[in-house]
Amino acid sequence: MHTDLVAALDIGGTKIAGALVDGDGRILQRTQRPTPAQEDGDTVMGAVEEVLGDLAGSPSWAGARAIGIGSAGPVDATTGTVSPVNVPGWRDFPLVDRVRAVTGGLPVELIGDGVAITAAEHWQGAARGHDNALCMVVSTGVGGGLVLGGRLHPGPTGNAGHIGHISVDLDGDPCPCGARGCVERIASGPNIARRALAAGWRPGPDGDTSAAAVATAARAGDPHAVASFERAAQALAAGIAATATLVEIDIAVIGGGVARAQDVLFAPLRRALRDYATLSFVQRLTVAPALMGTDAGLVGAAAAALHAAPDTTAAGVG
Amino acid sequence: MHTDLVAALDIGGTKIAGALVDGDGRILQRTQRPTPAQEDGDTVMGAVEEVLGDLAGSPSWAGARAIGIGSAGPVDATTGTVSPVNVPGWRDFPLVDRVRAVTGGLPVELIGDGVAITAAEHWQGAARGHDNALCMVVSTGVGGGLVLGGRLHPGPTGNAGHIGHISVDLDGDPCPCGARGCVERIASGPNIARRALAAGWRPGPDGDTSAAAVATAARAGDPHAVASFERAAQALAAGIAATATLVEIDIAVIGGGVARAQDVLFAPLRRALRDYATLSFVQRLTVAPALMGTDAGLVGAAAAALHAAPDTTAAGVG
Repeated sequence: MHTDLVAALDIGGTKIAGALVDGDGRILQRTQRPTPAQEDGDTVMGAVEEVLGDLAGSPSWAGARAIGIGSAGPVDATTGTVSPVNVPGWRDFPLVDRVRAVTGGLPVELIGDGVAITAAEHWQGAARGHDNALCMVVSTGVGGGLVLGGRLHPGPTGNAGHIGHISVDLDGDPCPCGARGCVERIASGPNIARRALAAGWRPGPDGDTSAAAVATAARAGDPHAVASFERAAQALAAGIAATATLVEIDIAVIGGGVARAQDVLFAPLRRALRDYATLSFVQRLTVAPALMGTDAGLVGAAAAALHAAPDTTAAGVG
Repeated sequence: MHTDLVAALDIGGTKIAGALVDGDGRILQRTQRPTPAQEDGDTVMGAVEEVLGDLAGSPSWAGARAIGIGSAGPVDATTGTVSPVNVPGWRDFPLVDRVRAVTGGLPVELIGDGVAITAAEHWQGAARGHDNALCMVVSTGVGGGLVLGGRLHPGPTGNAGHIGHISVDLDGDPCPCGARGCVERIASGPNIARRALAAGWRPGPDGDTSAAAVATAARAGDPHAVASFERAAQALAAGIAATATLVEIDIAVIGGGVARAQDVLFAPLRRALRDYATLSFVQRLTVAPALMGTDAGLVGAAAAALHAAPDTTAAGVG
């Protein structure tokens, strides 16, 4: 029996994960290494090569017909290079060429990590069946990707959907990206915690000052914690509404650590969305929690590879 | 000799224009009526029928194989209805059915007016040759449309590209749309004039308080006039940068009355764009004045009709 198979890499600032993934999105084999994020570029590439080496040791490897890479951004799919903000040793690093060189010339498809998550949610998660969707990760940062007209929209360079760095407060706080009032500067986990602390929220005896601890406090009624989540929800709503108004999406899927706050985030988000998504054609927009969990990056990278390099064997049979 | 031919309607709050347009975008015949914007829906439709009647009187009419409509929005291409803000008699008005009924069943393609302008600029204007573009009209309102991956992106309902109603100032002034801090609320002509007057600008002896008069004052060095254009430019830059960051465009084309201020608008806009378009993949974004003039709506509506209903006669010959 013929089984369509690709390899997938999910490259972040903390870990580099790899997998062999079949045409149904099942992970047959997986491995990972910590990202030596502060080392030089070749050392980081060495970790990628170890991950690929693990996969190549699998008996299934010979059937892999392409490699999908979802990488922390920015990426540049036109040149096959990556410049992840949190991996300073990689600036315009020729990741596609290097991966192709160590894998015997397999086709390589590169997309940003937000785009990869989106491919996974659209294939098998909360955006399944939606032809026009925004998928987001709200965590240490805020990332995202788009499905338009039933297809993934990576954009020419593979970075489309970077909702974390659109400004919703043009006079707002400076963002590390250089702009002001970006969605990420208001709604990321660290910014939710920072704002709650500045307003007077105090952590419990365990000293936990994460956004998760702020969410617990908000659920218990702490007004500063509630207010900080409401502000984050407002920024997310303005960004989601802007996206819908620009490209017409009907669902926004939200994953990442901050989304685990559940109704502490989603209830004020749905309220705020009514304030900003006002035009008739965006009023039916809904928000939903992500479904794909921590494998989303791998499954999405695999989806991109499967789609970009159609299975000619299967086509020949069909 | 075979000449591809369609009819086009450009429906706004002030006038209803119609034309017969050939496959090269040439206008062979044109006509228009004032929009009876405050009358009931059937009276407004009567003006549309008069325009179509004029066109049908042309000897070329028999060759028209489709009708493209660019209408003030919101529109709904899925139901064929329109609800233009400035035409209260038309709410979910079945414009497509009514036009089809009076034209003997020709195929009808409906898009928003911002999308129509975009189709025209992409076909023959400043966005020609650009696969990923935002085209805008900055005038009494702020509208727009998108080209993505080399094709017009009207969105499912025909309204995509509504950049005038994305919020770039989430705590800002209320906008008539119901949201706050929308691009239009800051950057439209009337808002440029309003803000200049509020800051202390005084019109000349002719009493002209239009944005064009503010532009003249700005060119002469009036600080309040300069500041008002700079604020508009900042809001436009934040909106354009947001669009590029979300979908990856490489050019923003700007037309409409406010764009006639030329460098009074474009110089601060290009400066502000550097402040907000910060990520690597949007730094090459440029802005350019629109080229299509007042026929853009008609030419763009024709382009949509030509594209949506391919010329089967020509295909048969080819």
